[in-house]
Amino acid sequence: MSFAGDARPIGIFDSGVGGLTVLKALYERYPEESYLYLGDTARLPYGTKSPETIVKYSQQIINYLYKREVKAIVIACNSASSVADRIKKNGIPVFNVIEPGASHALALTQNFRIGVVGTRTTVTTCAYPRAIAKLSSQAQVFQQACPLWVPLAEEGWINDPVTNLIVYRYLSPFLQSDIDTLILGCTHYPILKASIARALGPAVQLVDSGTALADLLAESFARGTLVPNKGSARLTIMATDTNQHFAEVARRILDPIKIDHMDQVDI
Amino acid sequence: MSFAGDARPIGIFDSGVGGLTVLKALYERYPEESYLYLGDTARLPYGTKSPETIVKYSQQIINYLYKREVKAIVIACNSASSVADRIKKNGIPVFNVIEPGASHALALTQNFRIGVVGTRTTVTTCAYPRAIAKLSSQAQVFQQACPLWVPLAEEGWINDPVTNLIVYRYLSPFLQSDIDTLILGCTHYPILKASIARALGPAVQLVDSGTALADLLAESFARGTLVPNKGSARLTIMATDTNQHFAEVARRILDPIKIDHMDQVDI
Repeated sequence: MSFAGDARPIGIFDSGVGGLTVLKALYERYPEESYLYLGDTARLPYGTKSPETIVKYSQQIINYLYKREVKAIVIACNSASSVADRIKKNGIPVFNVIEPGASHALALTQNFRIGVVGTRTTVTTCAYPRAIAKLSSQAQVFQQACPLWVPLAEEGWINDPVTNLIVYRYLSPFLQSDIDTLILGCTHYPILKASIARALGPAVQLVDSGTALADLLAESFARGTLVPNKGSARLTIMATDTNQHFAEVARRILDPIKIDHMDQVDI
Repeated sequence: MSFAGDARPIGIFDSGVGGLTVLKALYERYPEESYLYLGDTARLPYGTKSPETIVKYSQQIINYLYKREVKAIVIACNSASSVADRIKKNGIPVFNVIEPGASHALALTQNFRIGVVGTRTTVTTCAYPRAIAKLSSQAQVFQQACPLWVPLAEEGWINDPVTNLIVYRYLSPFLQSDIDTLILGCTHYPILKASIARALGPAVQLVDSGTALADLLAESFARGTLVPNKGSARLTIMATDTNQHFAEVARRILDPIKIDHMDQVDI
């Protein structure tokens, strides 16, 4: 198998389009791999639902991707990642976005003052402060909910004066807290990365889930728990409910990567 | 009964806090009435769900409010209003926000050029253009989806330069279309009414669902299909899932009206 390669795709899921930033980061690092992305758009958002419901939906999606014969699954959704330990893995590697983000931030920080931006739910549930506390008793974590960033990213108002103003307003509390590392704790936020970097300046390093996950996959490929593809690669985007807006935003996020196939599925 | 008054509350529901602008408009006109508001926050948003699901959820809420002995029900949610004809009314008057908005706009317009702002779903489903077309073959309707307005309203960034910029950006296409009337086709939007009025100037009249509904209730009181309360009034806010953010936003929207009771309920 190792010699022939493993042609099975890597499965990735999120409640909507946000996880496509993770797919993009993985594709840029591993363009030879096939990817099967599922956005559970019919049931979004996950953030406002109970943990029990999020476990149920995530399990359904993992079972579906397993049947589609993926070789690994990436939970590219912060809400689903926060219940990852309650989901059955069906014997394949399952990655989430919270732990890699937390450990990547700890690897980068010099002063152990780490900022986290996320949706109101991610901030309220303290998913990142808890993940960081498990790995280090030394770090201080400062959180800020940024509820306008997801709709701004979905509107495509990138490098826009209005977006810069809003990004700066949410980040200004961090200018007092002397952080040197900021975790983008929502898979939509890498879309606004240029504005975020500009607002905080070069002294603050940004951690996004996609890059952290790409590093983690490198370890799995090196250890042989994941075997790279040697055949032709294919990028498939599926959604539980599709509409023109979904297709538009998906294309805009992935650009210049081309989607081979887009499909609506029942899971 | 007519002499004694009808002390039963008026029931109002929405998927979240938006419908509170309708409650506020009704309360300001009829402060002697009791109100029972239900926000289905556990299952929001409705806009992205199928019509069948919205019918099912709305029916559950209407049945629940009926058991709580309301004398009338106001569907203060555009998504639920668009399926109002498929919901069983249990023999009490049930009002929705789309028809009163459409007929109020037709009563105000001089040039029969009417604008509609709403969420992406409300605009895509053409709920207002269809309701207007049923009442008049003469009117031209211009629509604009404003996805950032709900999160701006919920953040409470009112009379804020950032909000004014975003409001103006969404409304600028209307400056070319020569509308004289604009329907605020989302129950959150009256929160931004001052910014909207400033952007469009005095030549454009704004129609909000709360005011249109208050007029409609006046007719029902006059006809005797609704009997006013003569006893003490009480304002109760219920939600299917509550959190600090819901309570904060609810208080901010209703201010200076005081909430007598706030509760989490299973329906």
